[in-house]
Amino acid sequence: MSAPLPPALAPGATIGILGGGQLGRMLSQAASRLGFNVVILDPEENSPAGRVSQGQIVAAYDNPTALGVLGQTSQAVTFEFENVPASSVAKLAESGALVAPGPRALAVAQDRVEEKTFLNGVGATTVDFVPVDGLDDLLAGLERLGTPALLKTRRDGYDGKGQVWVRSAREAADAWNAIGERPAILEARAAFTRELSVIAARGRDGQIAVYPLGENIHKGGVLKTTLAPAAVDAKTEKRAKAIAKAILNGLDYVGVLGVELFDLGDGRLLVNEIAPRVHNTGHWTQDGCVCDQFEQHIRAIAGWPLGPTTAHFRVEMTNLLGDEVDQWTRLAAKPDMRLHLYGKAEARPGRKMAHVNRVKAL
Amino acid sequence: MSAPLPPALAPGATIGILGGGQLGRMLSQAASRLGFNVVILDPEENSPAGRVSQGQIVAAYDNPTALGVLGQTSQAVTFEFENVPASSVAKLAESGALVAPGPRALAVAQDRVEEKTFLNGVGATTVDFVPVDGLDDLLAGLERLGTPALLKTRRDGYDGKGQVWVRSAREAADAWNAIGERPAILEARAAFTRELSVIAARGRDGQIAVYPLGENIHKGGVLKTTLAPAAVDAKTEKRAKAIAKAILNGLDYVGVLGVELFDLGDGRLLVNEIAPRVHNTGHWTQDGCVCDQFEQHIRAIAGWPLGPTTAHFRVEMTNLLGDEVDQWTRLAAKPDMRLHLYGKAEARPGRKMAHVNRVKAL
Repeated sequence: MSAPLPPALAPGATIGILGGGQLGRMLSQAASRLGFNVVILDPEENSPAGRVSQGQIVAAYDNPTALGVLGQTSQAVTFEFENVPASSVAKLAESGALVAPGPRALAVAQDRVEEKTFLNGVGATTVDFVPVDGLDDLLAGLERLGTPALLKTRRDGYDGKGQVWVRSAREAADAWNAIGERPAILEARAAFTRELSVIAARGRDGQIAVYPLGENIHKGGVLKTTLAPAAVDAKTEKRAKAIAKAILNGLDYVGVLGVELFDLGDGRLLVNEIAPRVHNTGHWTQDGCVCDQFEQHIRAIAGWPLGPTTAHFRVEMTNLLGDEVDQWTRLAAKPDMRLHLYGKAEARPGRKMAHVNRVKAL
Repeated sequence: MSAPLPPALAPGATIGILGGGQLGRMLSQAASRLGFNVVILDPEENSPAGRVSQGQIVAAYDNPTALGVLGQTSQAVTFEFENVPASSVAKLAESGALVAPGPRALAVAQDRVEEKTFLNGVGATTVDFVPVDGLDDLLAGLERLGTPALLKTRRDGYDGKGQVWVRSAREAADAWNAIGERPAILEARAAFTRELSVIAARGRDGQIAVYPLGENIHKGGVLKTTLAPAAVDAKTEKRAKAIAKAILNGLDYVGVLGVELFDLGDGRLLVNEIAPRVHNTGHWTQDGCVCDQFEQHIRAIAGWPLGPTTAHFRVEMTNLLGDEVDQWTRLAAKPDMRLHLYGKAEARPGRKMAHVNRVKAL
């Protein structure tokens, strides 16, 4: 017999968000639309999310006092990034707030070896991989997986950082050095034809909602464009959704989750990685679906019924990085372009400043 | 030769809003999405709009210091209600901020005699009316317009307040007393079959965008439901849009304007009243159109090109008043219901707490 579910959060309740970037900002806006108050925790004063929320606590993510205040102020707490210290989650839970997604999802998403082990355990295939704790492991791994293979730190990598291709055993020492000689994973190369992603949500009651797939195009290791709903056959769609469900149920997950998939072009899908949060490849839902991924996440963590996931537009989502945001004046004049700007003051090169959703009839 | 237009506001600029209620809140959310910072002026601390904005100045709407600060902080200032003192607008303009809509629109909207005189002047028909400054005027007016006729204060009425039906000359003295013996207007009864409204916008450059019409159902003098796009024939649609354009151009208007129309059922449309702001009967655009009235207003006052106004869903917008907001738990479970809650703490009887947009395929 499982414990009874806590009651749904009523409008007027406060939701805490760790992280004040664009994902926190769009989560906050969705929460406000449902009548919730939002408090942000972020070390950067006047953060993009803080500026559209009732309050911001300016402190480090592991500051116990700040976490205590956030936990006591908020009836539910969530986060915009997966590298939340486990100790922070424990501290928040202590203060009485519901924290979602939970510690298990974070632990899995924070370590690439844990992640792939978990995925394979729930029947979600990945590339072959070998944990690497030293140069010997790396050499043995290259032998087993063949070359080229991808060496990644187990923890803390994102947007192509902390990873390096190893083309032969001769490059092993340099590669090991390049990633800082830290606990790592060596991944076999996937001969994929394209990258797909699936955004899915699970409610507190176990209800699951899955959006149509997106097809993603990266540039320099960073997402450039998502096309959604992606042109996929019914079998691929079905398989991708089954993978998402297995992951959500396997983690006893609450909230929105992003799953990146390699499409091998022969009917097989491999999971590249999962993100226990709203995901850049789900931004298209803001203008393509009646209930977007941000509202969906808030609904899930608040214990509300999940919203519909059907697309009513085909969307081409494009990230604007660095000074690409200066194109706003041209883009604002196009009636099919929906602008979403993050309110970041400084357009540093490569920084995600905004995205645009180009909408077309289905 | 007219003066050159000021340049469009770039993202990162600050927009000031007078009024921190639900209209200010939804304007603020739209402005944030376009990368603007928002500061609210409202005497009520922690107002619905203040809670989702970068800052709030807590002061009366005619406080010169507060207006000076708002004007200096903001590159453009707008308002969520039409009863802004003319002196406040002058003070803001002095501080260097662009104020839109301008003083002419406010003056016309604040006085029912001015309003109808202006409307008739631009070819927008209204009911017959007589200015009433005393009981004698009222009696003469009843003689001229027939009974029943509607006696309204010239200024400050809204949602059916400050008005009374006069069914015969014998009721004149009581009616005059009931509205406080203030400068008034007596309006002939319009034998209308339904109320329509049209939401339209005009940019700084004179560009005009008009949304499809809505059909409105009132209850106790307060808007209950808007159905949009309304079922109207092409001629009515065309006539309503022409009326909106004549008003916008006649006022040299910048921003979104709401026009309430009486449909006489025989092809004639009378203008009931205009609101120089985003309008409750335009809330359906949030889920029916790619660019809603709130973004449209921000685009206009920021000097951006106007967005598209085509509907992609048919919408039934319903206001939730007072404790009707407690229905959220039932409504949240319906996949065709889009909830918009205003974050008001106290559900006083009759208070606008939220609205829901029920979306249907066109």
